[in-house]
Parts: sequence; structure tokens; C-alpha cells
Amino acid sequence: MTSTTAPATMRTAVLTEPGAITVESRPVPAPAADEVLIEVRSVGVCGSDTHYFDHGRIGDHVVTGPLVLGHESAGVIVAVGSDVDPGRVDERVAIEPGVPCRSCAQCLAGHYNLCPDMVFHATPPVDGTLAEYVTHPASFAFTLPDSVSFDEGAMLEPLSVGIWACRRASVGPGVRVLVTGAGPVGQLAAQTAIAFGATEVVVADVNAHRLSVATSLGATEVVDVSSTALTDAYAGRPGPDVVLECSGHEGSTQAAIRVAAPAGRVVLIGMGGDTLALPLGDVQNRELWVTGVFRYANTWPTAIDLVASGRVRLGPLATGHFLLDDTAAALTAARTDPGAIKSIIHPAGREAAER
Amino acid sequence: MTSTTAPATMRTAVLTEPGAITVESRPVPAPAADEVLIEVRSVGVCGSDTHYFDHGRIGDHVVTGPLVLGHESAGVIVAVGSDVDPGRVDERVAIEPGVPCRSCAQCLAGHYNLCPDMVFHATPPVDGTLAEYVTHPASFAFTLPDSVSFDEGAMLEPLSVGIWACRRASVGPGVRVLVTGAGPVGQLAAQTAIAFGATEVVVADVNAHRLSVATSLGATEVVDVSSTALTDAYAGRPGPDVVLECSGHEGSTQAAIRVAAPAGRVVLIGMGGDTLALPLGDVQNRELWVTGVFRYANTWPTAIDLVASGRVRLGPLATGHFLLDDTAAALTAARTDPGAIKSIIHPAGREAAER
Amino acid sequence: MTSTTAPATMRTAVLTEPGAITVESRPVPAPAADEVLIEVRSVGVCGSDTHYFDHGRIGDHVVTGPLVLGHESAGVIVAVGSDVDPGRVDERVAIEPGVPCRSCAQCLAGHYNLCPDMVFHATPPVDGTLAEYVTHPASFAFTLPDSVSFDEGAMLEPLSVGIWACRRASVGPGVRVLVTGAGPVGQLAAQTAIAFGATEVVVADVNAHRLSVATSLGATEVVDVSSTALTDAYAGRPGPDVVLECSGHEGSTQAAIRVAAPAGRVVLIGMGGDTLALPLGDVQNRELWVTGVFRYANTWPTAIDLVASGRVRLGPLATGHFLLDDTAAALTAARTDPGAIKSIIHPAGREAAER
Amino acid sequence: MTSTTAPATMRTAVLTEPGAITVESRPVPAPAADEVLIEVRSVGVCGSDTHYFDHGRIGDHVVTGPLVLGHESAGVIVAVGSDVDPGRVDERVAIEPGVPCRSCAQCLAGHYNLCPDMVFHATPPVDGTLAEYVTHPASFAFTLPDSVSFDEGAMLEPLSVGIWACRRASVGPGVRVLVTGAGPVGQLAAQTAIAFGATEVVVADVNAHRLSVATSLGATEVVDVSSTALTDAYAGRPGPDVVLECSGHEGSTQAAIRVAAPAGRVVLIGMGGDTLALPLGDVQNRELWVTGVFRYANTWPTAIDLVASGRVRLGPLATGHFLLDDTAAALTAARTDPGAIKSIIHPAGREAAER
Repeated sequence: MTSTTAPATMRTAVLTEPGAITVESRPVPAPAADEVLIEVRSVGVCGSDTHYFDHGRIGDHVVTGPLVLGHESAGVIVAVGSDVDPGRVDERVAIEPGVPCRSCAQCLAGHYNLCPDMVFHATPPVDGTLAEYVTHPASFAFTLPDSVSFDEGAMLEPLSVGIWACRRASVGPGVRVLVTGAGPVGQLAAQTAIAFGATEVVVADVNAHRLSVATSLGATEVVDVSSTALTDAYAGRPGPDVVLECSGHEGSTQAAIRVAAPAGRVVLIGMGGDTLALPLGDVQNRELWVTGVFRYANTWPTAIDLVASGRVRLGPLATGHFLLDDTAAALTAARTDPGAIKSIIHPAGREAAER
Repeated sequence: MTSTTAPATMRTAVLTEPGAITVESRPVPAPAADEVLIEVRSVGVCGSDTHYFDHGRIGDHVVTGPLVLGHESAGVIVAVGSDVDPGRVDERVAIEPGVPCRSCAQCLAGHYNLCPDMVFHATPPVDGTLAEYVTHPASFAFTLPDSVSFDEGAMLEPLSVGIWACRRASVGPGVRVLVTGAGPVGQLAAQTAIAFGATEVVVADVNAHRLSVATSLGATEVVDVSSTALTDAYAGRPGPDVVLECSGHEGSTQAAIRVAAPAGRVVLIGMGGDTLALPLGDVQNRELWVTGVFRYANTWPTAIDLVASGRVRLGPLATGHFLLDDTAAALTAARTDPGAIKSIIHPAGREAAER
Repeated sequence: MTSTTAPATMRTAVLTEPGAITVESRPVPAPAADEVLIEVRSVGVCGSDTHYFDHGRIGDHVVTGPLVLGHESAGVIVAVGSDVDPGRVDERVAIEPGVPCRSCAQCLAGHYNLCPDMVFHATPPVDGTLAEYVTHPASFAFTLPDSVSFDEGAMLEPLSVGIWACRRASVGPGVRVLVTGAGPVGQLAAQTAIAFGATEVVVADVNAHRLSVATSLGATEVVDVSSTALTDAYAGRPGPDVVLECSGHEGSTQAAIRVAAPAGRVVLIGMGGDTLALPLGDVQNRELWVTGVFRYANTWPTAIDLVASGRVRLGPLATGHFLLDDTAAALTAARTDPGAIKSIIHPAGREAAER
Repeated sequence: MTSTTAPATMRTAVLTEPGAITVESRPVPAPAADEVLIEVRSVGVCGSDTHYFDHGRIGDHVVTGPLVLGHESAGVIVAVGSDVDPGRVDERVAIEPGVPCRSCAQCLAGHYNLCPDMVFHATPPVDGTLAEYVTHPASFAFTLPDSVSFDEGAMLEPLSVGIWACRRASVGPGVRVLVTGAGPVGQLAAQTAIAFGATEVVVADVNAHRLSVATSLGATEVVDVSSTALTDAYAGRPGPDVVLECSGHEGSTQAAIRVAAPAGRVVLIGMGGDTLALPLGDVQNRELWVTGVFRYANTWPTAIDLVASGRVRLGPLATGHFLLDDTAAALTAARTDPGAIKSIIHPAGREAAER
């Protein structure tokens, strides 16, 4: 192991039971042969973190013991395993949080996100990155150029969801896009669609503030669906070729499907109920493709390119900064601040995250 | 117009009101410049014909005046318009029943089946082919080799649905296929999947007779879902990569989606209710693509190849033959004969259909 | 026919023999039922126009009688045929110059550019648009928004080549692009690649001025191949995933193929010799796809979107403006002005072209 | 390690210098944690084996020390590493001979055949399978059903080339295929195309015997290009949509490209010279895609399905059987027997290969 400065123990924020986060001291792990040890500088709070904090489970994923949350992360390599280039020490990196088996049919076919043996940060029982240090396979730690900050590096994870959705939906110039739901994922999906060349990107939500953020980030049109139905918004003009559904709301999803253009692609990104009452005639008569996204595959290099080139702006989405001791506050910020979009936690301190 | 033998008037079977078919004499139409006049030899009865006969409507398509049914058709060219090669007179042809505008964005993009101005046989108010003669654009009348009978020529239409579904779902060698529903379309979809190279084609239905037909036509496995749940049938082995849903039954569709493999494609072919309660977790977590088919595009040449080469056998599906005077009986044959799969009507007489 | 102001005769620039252009008076044509009559405001000069002017032929296409050149065109509808919406009179339009048969297998499959019966402006013996008026099918005359000028409208044609190439090569975010040759088509291909989301677009040429134009239009890097070999330019870093070959130069093409990344796509856009000595080992060992483009299909709406949204800037490419009487000078401008990129001819006068 | 019966040493056939094979005793290797130890029952002789034997190199791949040849292999698992299911001992398996790194961009994108760090049997300096025992990663040893013999198991490797080529070229029903060159790879490519649903598969060669084998294996037409030019064979009818070029002969390749249909795909499988004089006009005007194949990815499960289902018949291609001591004879069999297609070597003896 080639190393710089890692201490023997570290602080980590542990979910001990629903609603309770404790900062614990744990041993700093040693990287395996193909791994690196990363000092964690920025961790974005995802809706799934908050959901585990509130409910102790998401669907079949149940928290049954102490769990470190956090999976949107960036930091600095401080040590490398024996098979890793020692020159990577001191490298600034973003972490792709899911590590697939790399041997199954799904992995070998290039959609490793569907690997049944995926090990994913902060999905029980796998600990996440709300710790001062974390080990990770070197090939899933991506070099950040200096122009990309740690906060942006952490937000490459939700950006990856947008990239994956746009790729699956074949977004490009001449493709009309509708984004339903303007939370963090919707904001990123809209920006990503623009970066993929879409010249019509409509964003729909009920929250005027979020719609104004969408406009400022490049949406070509917004629809406040608290006052205007989507069918009215699209009356007399072509419907969207692609729907990026980020609200998880059944009525919204159905309305989006109703306005989708012939041969359109509808990507279900937002989490909703157990079933969706799918309007069959629309799907059949216009041959819509309806699908969902489950994480992403092969997106980090593209995400870095989009941010480094200025095509996607992540900075405006970081609306709150927290220390490890304030993890619980970070997880619940959206409840107290209606303008909150993305909270960032800095396990190694605020100053380190700005270097 | 170059012509051989067409008379001035012809007999045609007209739906005058739900449940009532009258054979009427009408003038034989003259082909326009780019059209041919076809003496109709074989017309297959589709579920949509029966549905119009019983209910006078299918969804938004309402029969408001006398309507000639029939859209699965083959015959002989007896006259051609001024822009058509006169050498085509006497040619045996199969008719692709839908004629798109050929100028809109959908047409120019190659998915002309989604053309909003499609003119389609026996879709109100457009008359169908249950007549001794019918005119049709020459480029939608496809030459039949001698080895393909008129009955088979008529059944190229439902075969086209199977081809279109298999193409959209990327069926090929190594792709596991499940067909739910073993009616005429399901039988053809299963055979088509085999012809596309699939080596595992499971057919599910509640009708033992239909399952035995499926086996005789090449299904590699059948599941009687009246006694075995699909989830049991797929327990302990990989689920289907492609589901060709031909039953229109919600529970069956849901079960099929539950067993579909990661990255699977689910094609909704059967007509069902207004909505389908789509299991969201399956669609999202395994990134299934769910779509429907609306008719077909560019399938007749392939359909002819598959039948002429013996890869698909249509003969066993023709379970009843009728004259124009017996149209009502043909439309309701499936009610009286549980072994009925496809009824064929011969407007120009039974003998002519066998030449 | 619904009309405004078309006179009985018009002026037109006719290639009477290689090197000789005569302005002739001809009757203004009347639009057929599905056509519009367009007053031509701007016509871009293409290399093919110059080639016909110089040599009287391009490959198998031989000029055997008087020929009107010009196929990059925009203007105003002044009359419409009986089947066209009269409301289109006075509409500003860009002309897609090739009209396919819309009935053959290529057309119905959506790649109508490969239609064997294509009728294309200024491809002998079909006259082009260097005339005050021209008739054209209404569905191939695309409405221009006010923000897109006639000059830009004319240049949508070469832009379409870039769009078609980028689509065929699957350009998008994360895809590294190399453009070889920085003439008008190369400039547009580079801009298009950027608009498709590519964040690395390298342009290679031997002409420093053209490289500086490429930089000003957004190329992320330029290579002067008169001093730096492509293999050196790509030493130690990943090669391009996509090569848009616009030079037609064999050595340049080979060098581009040698640096292309595994699974790369090489699109041969520039016209070269009869054969290309293709480096086989590169194509096989890295599974490169090599193809050419022949015109385009379904590109005008996207081209309009890209220009109207400011994603592609066509203005800087128009380096010379000419009247119909100066057609010969426009055709040879590139010989006398090394800074010339695209000459525009205004059959209806310079002033009309600016409205 | 879980094991049955492996001894301490084994016999292996080693290429010591061009033209010289020596049978040597070597230690039986022990499987690593993720590996299995396989007793080798059948090894097919590939043209690359013969080329190394004759010339000591293939392009940049140079034999610089003793090398065990052989990479088309099947056998029985006799021991497993610590991470492998011990239940796999005694399992009959086919070996995918190339093992990629599984961490690079090519691997994670699903085209692991382009992995720059591929370790491939019998590609210097990696030893091959002409030995009584060989170790291999468990996930690249595929279970053979009882109905697939060891000889067939070995020939899944060249079959994989055909599958990969057909997949890349989108072969399916309605796709016309031309195979140029009827050696082992051409025979398999033709059979594979049929199994993928192609109903027109033309095979061209100069060897009448090989053409008769092609006919017996299902080719729908053969062309003896010693007497009939391809352009004549395709005069007056549509050219092939897909060319599977297996001859490596420049003139043959050019002729095939000349007859290819619009939007056709030309896959260069056969090894030829350093460059191919590519007919540019054909590639550009008909937008042909020209590519090569480099091995294969994700093909073994499909290959097994095709053989087990009887869709592809490998038995008739095995025209000679040899023991390890006769390796040199096996490598040169094609020189002495014009009817030879594929020689099979049985390292564990002839009897064991038939179990």
C-alpha cells in the first residue's frame, strides 16, 4: 500500500435507528490490492438517504443494523492498494458508488447497473461515505480536473441519472423533451437534456420556485401544473418525443404519457407507488416505449466532461453545506427550507472541501 | 387503365348495423393512376371484424354508416392504373391494408404505421375487402410466389403483427421469449419468434387445445396458466428477455412483467382495458422496456419470405372456409367451434381461392 | 392555385457548357396540386455547383443539356397548388432539394435519401434553384421562423449533411470527435458535433485561416496537419470515437482511421478518388465502422431548431454575396479569395434577401 | 481447491520454432480462486494456429519463446478454485479463450473483446490449450448440455465469430446475406445467418467441394466465382443487405461491396493484406457500413443454444481427428486433404472425447 497521511481512526456518521444519527469513531480501512483509500470531502444528500433516515427502509431494502449513509461523493486519494498506480495518491476523485461483480451476464453485456450482485454505498447492509475515509476500487474512482469542485464531483452521481436517462431515451437535437418534476433529479435531467442537444425542454412542476430555477438553468419553457394542465400546455403543437418523469406522481405520469408524441420514450425516474395505471391506448396506438432507470452505467467520464466544459452547471443546486456532526440537519433540510435543492455534507471539514 | 375481365358490378358484404350483414351489389371501382384492381380470393376474419359486427365500434372508431369489413386479403390483379406496369395484370398479390400519406414526419421517418392520416381497410368510414373486387395502391399490393396460397397471402396480415413485434423487441438467437395468449396472433407471434432465431419460446394460455397447436407449431414449452402460475414456471431459471403479450388480460400481463429478465422488452399486442396496472418496481429495477404495437411497417416482403421458405406455417391456422353469403357465420365461428383459430372468406368463390 | 404576385416570366442562370453561365428568361412554372411556388431569395454555392461549372460532370452525373445550378435555397412562397393550405402564401421557407418517390422500399424504411428515383435540384437533368422562382412539393418546403434569415435558410442544406453524419455516427456527450478538413462542410460538421453535445471536437486542416474560423466557432482544439501529424496530436491520449472526414484526402483519411478509438465510427463525407486504401488491421482489430453519407433524411426540422436556438451559427460562413448576373463569379470565388467559405447568390435581388 | 483426479504432470504440445512441435511434460497448474482446472478433450485447429506454426507470427503478434497452441477447446472440470461452486467438478464445459480485464472502459461498455489487456489462449506469449489440463476463469467456462459433444463444444469458438458478425450486421428475417469464402468460418457464418432467420444466404467460393458442403448445410444458393462474377450473379435482382466476407481476398471483397444493397453492412472477417482498396463511390452513394470483427463478446450461451437446438450443425465440419502426438499433422491437414475443413485434436485421447 502506498499512502500519505491517513490516521488509524476516523469519524463516521451512523444511522443507528430511524431518525437517529450518531457520530462514531471507527478504524480507517486499508485498501485492497485494486482499491484506493479516499479522504471524503463532499457528500450530497439524496432522497434515499432521507428516506432511510425517516423510515429505515426503501421497499425491500431494510436497515437491520447500524448503517453509514451517503453515496454521492468526492474526495482525495490518500493511499492505494498494491495493484494501483502509486501516482494516483493526492488525486482528486469522484466516486461511482456501485461496484458490480464484473463477471455475470449483465456485467459482460455492458449494463452492469443490473448486476444482481452489485455492492452499492449506503444500500443496506453496505456502508456509505459519510465518513472521513472510505476505500473503493480504483477503477470506480474517477479523476476530477481542477476546474471541477468536490461539491460538483459529488453531484456527478445524480447527474449520472440524468445522463443515463437521456441516453436510454435517445435525447438529441430535434428531440422534444418534457421533464415532470423539478426537484434535484428533474433539474439535472433538464440540464442534461439541453446538453444532449435538445432545443425544446419543457419542465413541469407545482412549485414556482423550482420552476424559476429550471428557467435559470436553461429550460426553454416551464408549466406550472397547479394552474395549467399538460394537455392544455401541449394543445395545438407536437407533444414531447421524450418524457423524463421525475415526480413519481401517478397523475403527472399519466398526463405526460397522454401528451407524448408518436414513437415517444417515457422514462420513469421518480419513485412512485407499487403500480402505475398505464393508459394502454396511448402506449399501443402511438407505440410509446415506457421504461425506468435503475442507477446508471458508464456515465462518470461523460458527467465530468459536461461539468468541466460548462455544459451542465451543478453549483446552483448546492443550497446547503453541513459538517458531519450536522448530518441529521442536512438530511432534513428540505423540510425546513422550501428553497433547498441539494444539501452537501463535508466529512473532512468545510475548508478541505473548497481546495 | 389496363384490364382483363372485370365486370361492371360486384357483390359485397356490408355491415348495416351491429349483428347484420347484407350482401349488396355495388359498382366495381376503377383503379386510380397508381392503383390496381384486385379480384379478392381470400379474406381472413380478424377479431376487430367480429368486434365491429358485435358492437359497432372499437374504442374511438365508431361505425356510423354501412361498412364493408375485411382487411386480411389476397387476390389477383385484374386491372391497373395508368402509372402501373401493365405486366402486373394476372399477378397474384397480398394486400397491405393500410395506406399512409407518405409525406408526414412519421412516414418520412420510416414508421408510417403511426401516420395520422392512414387510410386502413375496414376502419370506419373506410370500406374493407369483403367484396369481389377492390382497388389498392400498386406499391401496397405484394407479389405472391406460386408456393404461397391465397389463404396464406391473407394471413400475412396477422403474421405482420408478429414480425413487427419481434423486430421491435429485437428477438433473435439467444433471446428467451414468452408469448402470453395462444389465439391467432399469439400462434403467429410464437412462430415468428422461432423464425427470428429464438431457441426458447414459451407459450402460455388457459386453453389446452391452443397450447397443443402451439406445440405442434414449434413452441419449445407451453404453460397452462389455469393450473401453473408463470412465476412457478420460471422459478429457478432465467426469465424471458422478451414478452409478446397477446392475451389482453391484465393479470396475465402483470405476471409476465414480473418474470421478465433484466433489460427485457414487453410488447403489448393484445387489446385490453383502458389502463394496465403496471408493476412499477419491476419496470424500474430491471429497466424493462414496455411498449405496444400499432399495426406494422415494412413487413410484407419479410412475411412472404418466411412463408415461402417454410419458416412459418400458416396453413394449420385456417380452420374454416366460408363464402361471401356466409360472412356472418364466419364472423362468429369462434363462438360455436372451440377449435376455430382463423376463418377465411372467399369473395370470388372457394374454387378461385385454390388456384 | 392560390397566388399573390408571380409574373409570367423569370430570369434564370443557366449552365450552357462548362465554364459558361447565361442568364435566360423562362416562363414561371405553375405549382402542381401538392406543390408551392417559391420566390428564391438566397442560394448557397456548393462545391458540386462549381464542379459542374468547371467539368460538366461529377462521376456518372453528366451535364448533357442546359442546366440550372443551385440546390441550397430559401425563399418565400408566392403561390400554392390546389391541395396545399393557402395560408402558406407569404411564408418564408427553406427548400429540401431532393424529392424521393415515397413508395419504394428505401423511402418506406425511412432512408429516403437512398431512393433510386430521387429527383434532386441541379443534378442533371433536373434544374436547380438559380432562378427567380421555383416550384417544389409543399412538404419539402420548411417554414422558417423570423429569427432565421434567408441566407441561413439556404445553408440549412450543408448543415443537414453535418446533422446526418452526426446522427449516423451517434455523436453525443462523451463522444470524442475529429473533423478532418475545415471547408464549409467541415466547419458545419464541427459545429454540429458540438451541438450534439460532444465536448471534444478536434478540427484538422492545412489552412491556418480555416482553423482559426473553426476555433472561433467552437472547436475545442485544432491541428495544423501541415506541421503536426495526427498520430502525434493523439499520442498518449484516447483517439476520437468519431471521425467526420470532410477533406476527401486519402492520406488524411488513413491517418484519421489510424487514430480512431476502439469501436469508433468513421464517416466519409468528403469526395475523394475512386478507391480508398483502407488500413485493414485498424478496421478489424478495433472494430471500426466505416461509412459514407449520401445527402440526408429528415434533417430540416432539426437544422432549423439548431439555428433558431443559436446552437449553430451559420452567419459567419457566408463570406460573399452575389446577384444572379454574377453567378459565374460566385461559382469561382473560392479561387480568388482564400478567405472565402460560402458564396450566396440572391436571384430576387440583395434587398429581398434581407427581409 | 476442490478436485477429483488431476495428476501432478501433464503432456502438452509446444511450438518450439516455426514448423516444430514437441510434446513436453509440464506441471499441471492449480486453479486460482476464481478459476477451474479443465481436462481438455477436444481442441479445434484454427488458421491462426497453422499460421503461427508456419511463420512464427501473425502481424504484430510474434512468437518469441516456446508456445502452446490451441484456443478452440472443450473439456471436463476436474478441480475448482476456492471461490467457485464445488458442484461444478465433473461438469462438461466449452472454453471462451479470451479473458478481458473487466475494469477498462471497453469491458464496462460490453465490448470486452476490444479490451487492450485481453489475455487470449495461444496468442503469444499466452499458452493455449493443446495440453491435457488447463486452468481458466470459471465464468468463461460454459456448461455444455449432454446433447452437445466435446468436438462441437470446441467449435463453438469459430461459431462465435459467425454469431458476432451476424449480430453486428443485424442479420434477421428479410435480410439478404452473401458469404464470400466457404472455409470453416464461412461455413459457420452461412449457417449462423440462416439460424438468425435469413431466408436468402448466398455462398461464393472457387472450391466446388466447399460450395457443395455449404449447400448441404443450408445455403440457399452458391456461386462458383471461378466461373461466374458476383455482379452477374446479382444482375437484375436486389443485392445483399449483408456481406460476411470470409475469404480475405481483395478482389472478392471489392466485388461483394459493389453488389451490396443500399444501407448494406459489410463485415470483414477474413484476414487479408495490410490495406483494402475500398470502392469509395459504393460506400458513399449507398451509405454502406464497412467493419471488421475482432473475436466476439457474449456469444457462448447463444452458440450453445444454436447447437443444442439443432439450428446449427457443427458435426459435418469436423473432418479429421488427431492425438496430441499428431499435432503437426493436424496443423497441416488442409494441405494434404482438399476436403479437410476442421481438424480436431484430443489431448486426453480419442476415447475421452467421445464421452
